Amino acid sequence: MPDRDLHQLTANEIARAVAAGQCSAVDVAQACLDHIAEREPQVGAWEFLEPELVLKQARELDAAGPRGPLHGVPVGIKDIIDTADMPTAYGSPIHAGHRPHMDAVCVALTRRAGGLIMGKTVTTEFANRHPGKTRHPRDPQRTPGGSSSGSGAAVGDCMVPLALGTQTTASTIRPAAFNGCVGYRPTWGDLRMAGVMEAAGSVDTLGIIARSVEDVVLYRDVLIDTTPEPAVEIDPRQLRIGYCRSPFWDQADAATQKHLDACAKHLARAGANVLDVALPRDFEQIESVHRRISSFEFVRNRAWEIDNHWDGISDTLKMGRLKHGLACTFAEYRAARTEAEQLRLLLDDEFADCDVLLTPSAAGEAPVGLNETGTAVFCSIWTTCHVPSLTLPLFTGPNGLPLGAQLVGRRNDDRRLFAAALWVMAQYK
Amino acid sequence: MPDRDLHQLTANEIARAVAAGQCSAVDVAQACLDHIAEREPQVGAWEFLEPELVLKQARELDAAGPRGPLHGVPVGIKDIIDTADMPTAYGSPIHAGHRPHMDAVCVALTRRAGGLIMGKTVTTEFANRHPGKTRHPRDPQRTPGGSSSGSGAAVGDCMVPLALGTQTTASTIRPAAFNGCVGYRPTWGDLRMAGVMEAAGSVDTLGIIARSVEDVVLYRDVLIDTTPEPAVEIDPRQLRIGYCRSPFWDQADAATQKHLDACAKHLARAGANVLDVALPRDFEQIESVHRRISSFEFVRNRAWEIDNHWDGISDTLKMGRLKHGLACTFAEYRAARTEAEQLRLLLDDEFADCDVLLTPSAAGEAPVGLNETGTAVFCSIWTTCHVPSLTLPLFTGPNGLPLGAQLVGRRNDDRRLFAAALWVMAQYK
Repeated sequence: MPDRDLHQLTANEIARAVAAGQCSAVDVAQACLDHIAEREPQVGAWEFLEPELVLKQARELDAAGPRGPLHGVPVGIKDIIDTADMPTAYGSPIHAGHRPHMDAVCVALTRRAGGLIMGKTVTTEFANRHPGKTRHPRDPQRTPGGSSSGSGAAVGDCMVPLALGTQTTASTIRPAAFNGCVGYRPTWGDLRMAGVMEAAGSVDTLGIIARSVEDVVLYRDVLIDTTPEPAVEIDPRQLRIGYCRSPFWDQADAATQKHLDACAKHLARAGANVLDVALPRDFEQIESVHRRISSFEFVRNRAWEIDNHWDGISDTLKMGRLKHGLACTFAEYRAARTEAEQLRLLLDDEFADCDVLLTPSAAGEAPVGLNETGTAVFCSIWTTCHVPSLTLPLFTGPNGLPLGAQLVGRRNDDRRLFAAALWVMAQYK
Repeated sequence: MPDRDLHQLTANEIARAVAAGQCSAVDVAQACLDHIAEREPQVGAWEFLEPELVLKQARELDAAGPRGPLHGVPVGIKDIIDTADMPTAYGSPIHAGHRPHMDAVCVALTRRAGGLIMGKTVTTEFANRHPGKTRHPRDPQRTPGGSSSGSGAAVGDCMVPLALGTQTTASTIRPAAFNGCVGYRPTWGDLRMAGVMEAAGSVDTLGIIARSVEDVVLYRDVLIDTTPEPAVEIDPRQLRIGYCRSPFWDQADAATQKHLDACAKHLARAGANVLDVALPRDFEQIESVHRRISSFEFVRNRAWEIDNHWDGISDTLKMGRLKHGLACTFAEYRAARTEAEQLRLLLDDEFADCDVLLTPSAAGEAPVGLNETGTAVFCSIWTTCHVPSLTLPLFTGPNGLPLGAQLVGRRNDDRRLFAAALWVMAQYK
């Protein structure tokens, strides 16, 4: 067993230690609870956390014996994901205290694998922009990012080794990057969303936040409900990395630009084939395409709240997504979906010459200020195009806070992305 | 106001009559309730129907005055769709008595438009094959079709003018055809599914069952949440109809083959350009593609019930969808999704020469026997390829029961499909 406190271990380390009898699920749960008790007043990562319910699950796991590949691993669940034994409020006072009658598919599969549902992590309102109470664990003046704010902060602060988020624009990659985590946004459509509040189904996916690529690989297989397979090792001479500054390079700060440029050179020196990729100009319209799709769908998905609880909706949401959604006609929305489909095929072509793209995860470190969650633009292309991506905690910014590098994979080729990511991580050890 | 009983009017007729003060929402609701009271013991279309709750809504609509384009129109809601004021059991004893805490988007939008939620219509178990209690309104020995069994029977029997169904394979088109209704399956992705139980999200859509094409057009705009626009009239000389017997022609019975052949000739004589369309052989694999996608997703979507309520699941489901889903690997599933995407593009090409396809809705009349809901094969291509389709009640079979013709439109071109359907219907008046 690694020589660190239990709450600092990764999911793979915990699962191995519990399986080997080196510690119990109760030991792990208690270590996480103790750390949370100490840190939660400053961080505010949890919307719901009931220690007795955590320990009850842990005792049941210990009594039942090995159940699956996540046996005894504590997992945080973003509070737009239904849980039968915990309330789910979707980040909105309208739904405060709501208790779903069944688990979301992803929660049921987590339990099936022996995972321990630690609690519900803070989300922005309906996974949009209006923030919850969470602060950046390393600087309470800064945002933890959003919308999976609590999941990013909880994993970054070692309260849990794993957490579920979701992503409609940048809601997993951004908080993961700000908190020094590995964040994963899967190929759209691979992981079931039943029981997860829909923001905009045409682009929504689950997201995994972890502290290692190996943990992402393991948890993804659990959520697919397939036998876990570790990522394969890759020969860097077989790895083609497209360095893609993206059409939004100007919005990245100097530190991000400097680190990304250096990273591309470093990986080339380490043996990978690194080439510059400039996307066709068609991708410059991506923000308009994404905004029409997500706003049109979002405002309809909130029809019940709009008609029954208008006063419970934040002004941020009313003046933002809802306003945009109401202003977008069905014809404009349909056109955007067709444009997105064409951009997906166009992006497929870009991957003819490379296996993964290297690009910024966010503009920079987590910004100061708790009213915003940071720009989403560095995820808009990849989210809209349904491709998988990972943010890796490779750099440190000028304020000593984490900066991520984003690796983007081919649609349906998440496992090659994992293999590339493992190799890239190894070049920074 | 048309000279028929109120419960026999279409949604457009009811909306006009209520708006003109020719009758009240209470009058309409009471007429439907009276007819249901008489017929329900034989038909069994309703999973939940509480007359006092219906009349309460009707009185509120009358008191509030015109609210929207469905003001005073009673609508049946398939019982896999969440309603805040009525239980929702997904066709399963596991969920008996469950009361969702909010409306599905489609229900909220129906209410926003002034629609009256009549009650919950019977669905097969989890919208799969294990049937509910509904019998064919014209012959209690026959199936009403499924999975939207109650919606098809209720509209066919004039209990309500409109009902919501869903379709994962043939679950709207088939019951609509068996019951002599117009049934509509929209372009995949157009109508929000939040609050609707997911069977297999990659192919699931809502479905509308009505007694006129005009009612489908109206209700679709309500569900999109856009200002209603009637379908346009079409010049038949501008209409190109591809007559597509489909790779499954051998499974259609003699009456269906005879009527479809005659229909193609009749429409040509009436002035449309009718050409024969033989699909490429690639489409012969469609059943395998559809089965892998829908089974893989379905079995995961039921993870919570499988792990917590195994004994509450029917043997039909265990031996069918669940077994298939567990036997399908992730690689096979992913391959099927890629094949489906390629078939969609291939089908787009078929529409280069035609505006709509004419093809069977089902193998024949509703079959005798209450343990099955009829073959789904005549919908498998269109469902998998995400194109819109309509079944039109054009023919009568050898037992005096309805036979449908299916018109299939281009993806994203639902309104041209509607225009074509209006013209086709007019040729059978």
